[in-house]
Amino acid sequence: MNATVRYRLLADQLAEAIDRGSLPTGARLPSVRACAAQHTLSLNTVTAAYRLLEDRGLIEARPQSGYYVRSSLPPLQRPLRERPAGVRKAGEIDDLMAVVLQCQQRADHVDLALACPRGEAFYPGAKLAKLTASLLRRQPQLVARYALPPGSQRLREQIARRAALLGMTLAADDILLTHGAMEALQLALRAVTHAGDTVGVESPSYFNLYPLLASLGLRVLEIPTHPQHGLALDALELLLEEKRLAAIVAMPTVHNPLGCSMPVAAKQRLADLVNRHRVPLIEDALYAELQFAEPLQPTVKAFDRDGWVMTCASYTKTLAPDYRIGWLEAGRFRDAVRQLKFSSSVAESVLLAETVGLFLENGGYDHHMRALRRRYAAQVDAVRGLVARHFPAGTRATQPVGGFLLWLELPETVDSLALFHAALAERIVIIPGQLYSNGARFRHCLRLSCCQELDERVTGALRRLGELATALAGAPPAA
Amino acid sequence: MNATVRYRLLADQLAEAIDRGSLPTGARLPSVRACAAQHTLSLNTVTAAYRLLEDRGLIEARPQSGYYVRSSLPPLQRPLRERPAGVRKAGEIDDLMAVVLQCQQRADHVDLALACPRGEAFYPGAKLAKLTASLLRRQPQLVARYALPPGSQRLREQIARRAALLGMTLAADDILLTHGAMEALQLALRAVTHAGDTVGVESPSYFNLYPLLASLGLRVLEIPTHPQHGLALDALELLLEEKRLAAIVAMPTVHNPLGCSMPVAAKQRLADLVNRHRVPLIEDALYAELQFAEPLQPTVKAFDRDGWVMTCASYTKTLAPDYRIGWLEAGRFRDAVRQLKFSSSVAESVLLAETVGLFLENGGYDHHMRALRRRYAAQVDAVRGLVARHFPAGTRATQPVGGFLLWLELPETVDSLALFHAALAERIVIIPGQLYSNGARFRHCLRLSCCQELDERVTGALRRLGELATALAGAPPAA
Repeated sequence: MNATVRYRLLADQLAEAIDRGSLPTGARLPSVRACAAQHTLSLNTVTAAYRLLEDRGLIEARPQSGYYVRSSLPPLQRPLRERPAGVRKAGEIDDLMAVVLQCQQRADHVDLALACPRGEAFYPGAKLAKLTASLLRRQPQLVARYALPPGSQRLREQIARRAALLGMTLAADDILLTHGAMEALQLALRAVTHAGDTVGVESPSYFNLYPLLASLGLRVLEIPTHPQHGLALDALELLLEEKRLAAIVAMPTVHNPLGCSMPVAAKQRLADLVNRHRVPLIEDALYAELQFAEPLQPTVKAFDRDGWVMTCASYTKTLAPDYRIGWLEAGRFRDAVRQLKFSSSVAESVLLAETVGLFLENGGYDHHMRALRRRYAAQVDAVRGLVARHFPAGTRATQPVGGFLLWLELPETVDSLALFHAALAERIVIIPGQLYSNGARFRHCLRLSCCQELDERVTGALRRLGELATALAGAPPAA
Repeated sequence: MNATVRYRLLADQLAEAIDRGSLPTGARLPSVRACAAQHTLSLNTVTAAYRLLEDRGLIEARPQSGYYVRSSLPPLQRPLRERPAGVRKAGEIDDLMAVVLQCQQRADHVDLALACPRGEAFYPGAKLAKLTASLLRRQPQLVARYALPPGSQRLREQIARRAALLGMTLAADDILLTHGAMEALQLALRAVTHAGDTVGVESPSYFNLYPLLASLGLRVLEIPTHPQHGLALDALELLLEEKRLAAIVAMPTVHNPLGCSMPVAAKQRLADLVNRHRVPLIEDALYAELQFAEPLQPTVKAFDRDGWVMTCASYTKTLAPDYRIGWLEAGRFRDAVRQLKFSSSVAESVLLAETVGLFLENGGYDHHMRALRRRYAAQVDAVRGLVARHFPAGTRATQPVGGFLLWLELPETVDSLALFHAALAERIVIIPGQLYSNGARFRHCLRLSCCQELDERVTGALRRLGELATALAGAPPAA
């Protein structure tokens, strides 16, 4: 067992103790020396484990005193229990999404919904602008080039190179550039499913996945998903014995909306499972590079054997939202997705793809990402703190290990659709929990984006949202 | 009847006489004065009609002498007769398209297949590059904006404004920006069909439409399409009385690959037909602005009553191929396509869309388009001449009224798939006729792109292609 595995194991043990409450909020952890002696580990290993827990926001170091369990907000410890869900009304949700989209584009609304940072502070905008302008100056004929799939060789080589940091061995030739990760998901699904097929998804899942699946005539089977360990593999394994799934869509590394990653061993088991059952796993690795702790945990793709894992990601969340450059490595479905891309939207802009490629080559992407990780970890933590102060008693929250999303379970008396409308009346945009499932399972849940500057406008909106939730929590439960 | 209608009617009559052969190649047309007297029209009207025929490449003016019927290449005068088609082998065609895509990206191949001009000469590349660079300088934060549908207001307003030149009254609010016209087709189809539905298409149709339809699980019904007048409306009307079509996809204005436009009256009838039968018509107007003759003929959308016509186009063929900015006005399906866009690929780059918008506002688009029309008319004509000289006897060709595509019918003994392979062996890329239908109907046909500089490399390739076709024509017919 190497050092990396040892300190992660220790961190996981301690995190579990914190979750169970055997290390309650405010408790002091054993000193590094005591802990090392107790577990017969080196001081370095224990220090690394404590740092990891600090990065995850579970403990804090107090100068001259030691490490303490932090956070007054109870973490989410188990999947929401199944409830008599009923199916969402499709029309209602579509209309709601249309309202969200409109309001997000209005300057007079505070947007706590959009999962994409807005504002220069989060991106090397000036540097990218410079790179693009310089490309145009040197090669104005780029504008007149008709791009064909798979797209910019330079960028694909960089994607392959960086994939190694997530444990993946990819070849540039097997990578397809896409119009963001959303198109990658769309193409991957279309490559391996037919209308009427059943697709397994996590529960909760990224809200925009449901309309995509519905538009393709696909049935959805929601697989229980733990707010800290992700997809419930025992459940999935039973399911695969009994039922044919055309595909599974999952975010095993920094989940949207839960912010969790599956343990590495579970990822390996998931890879084995889909290879054994020959079921395509569409792995959405959109936030994988935004893991708070380094070295980064590997993706499921890292353990793929026979090409059943199709992995996608994009640079919209980390580098250049407007450029919409995503990618898909589709394993054994490589040729199929390439042709689908050509007959669905042809190809990506070479100008934009080359810009991203140049930035990855020597623009300081690693430096930028480290700053982003620190910043998001701090912001998620700050929003968690605001929620702890302003939201009704009984509110629980995830403890994200990456990204910039926070998932809340409000008291069961709060209908988040009612909260959505109350907030909208005050020009605050949120996405209600109902959208993260096909049923009403998450009707008292809520996703908050922590990726905007936490200025007074945003913190004020969070406070007000908490007040509105508190008012709704006190109201008599809905019939 | 106004002057515009009068001169068009006269031109159509004369064109028909040329087609029928009652005005054979080389024949002298009556003088303007004689023709005016004969039809009791003004001299201006006759002159306008002759100019239109000149623009269409049907006649030529000889100084001091008058107008003569031109072209030594027989025009295509009727839809290809139905043959015992058999269904294409899907796998074979997919493999072939993959080969085409690969070879098109190799500098050592001459590409006569790609329907997109390559090279600076055809685009205001420098000006666009400047506009983009200037936008980036003034607003580097654009890079960091997360675009949402429907996309740049500026561009949508310009699209609406320019649509008027094609007879359409569109509102910016109803326009959705898409990733080229290909994505517009994809979204339009997905908005109105389900897997298993039947879609009516022209025969021949744009080759990339077939894999798109297949990938969506749609059945294809090919409707006879006249090489000069487009979709056979009598056939379509009968069909609609008997069969439910989920949609019709057509290019009524400058067809790909035929280069023809439906007569204006037929467009009006088509609009009436789809409104009466409540069948969505997906009108691909990609080449509508590339009509050789001005004023431009209206699209079918111009006659839409209740929003059953969904019209799309893009700026990839006329302005900035690499920017991949397309659009879709989906009539009564506006909200559906907007949501589909969001859950399929989110939105288009604001930077690129704004650049195109700025160019349309004041970059000299009209001037650019006029130059392009003249240039393509001349190039199509030149390639027609080369085909007349070098291709086997019995070859017939379309007489495009716009765009830059030429469609050839070779002698029936020539299998264009065999020609494709023979040409590829000499590094010449063409698209065989088989790809323009689901059957083998067009197996002796061929589409040629006339949108590259006609330098020696290209003219040499055309000559060689003719030689290869001639050799195949002499070979005994395939079993």
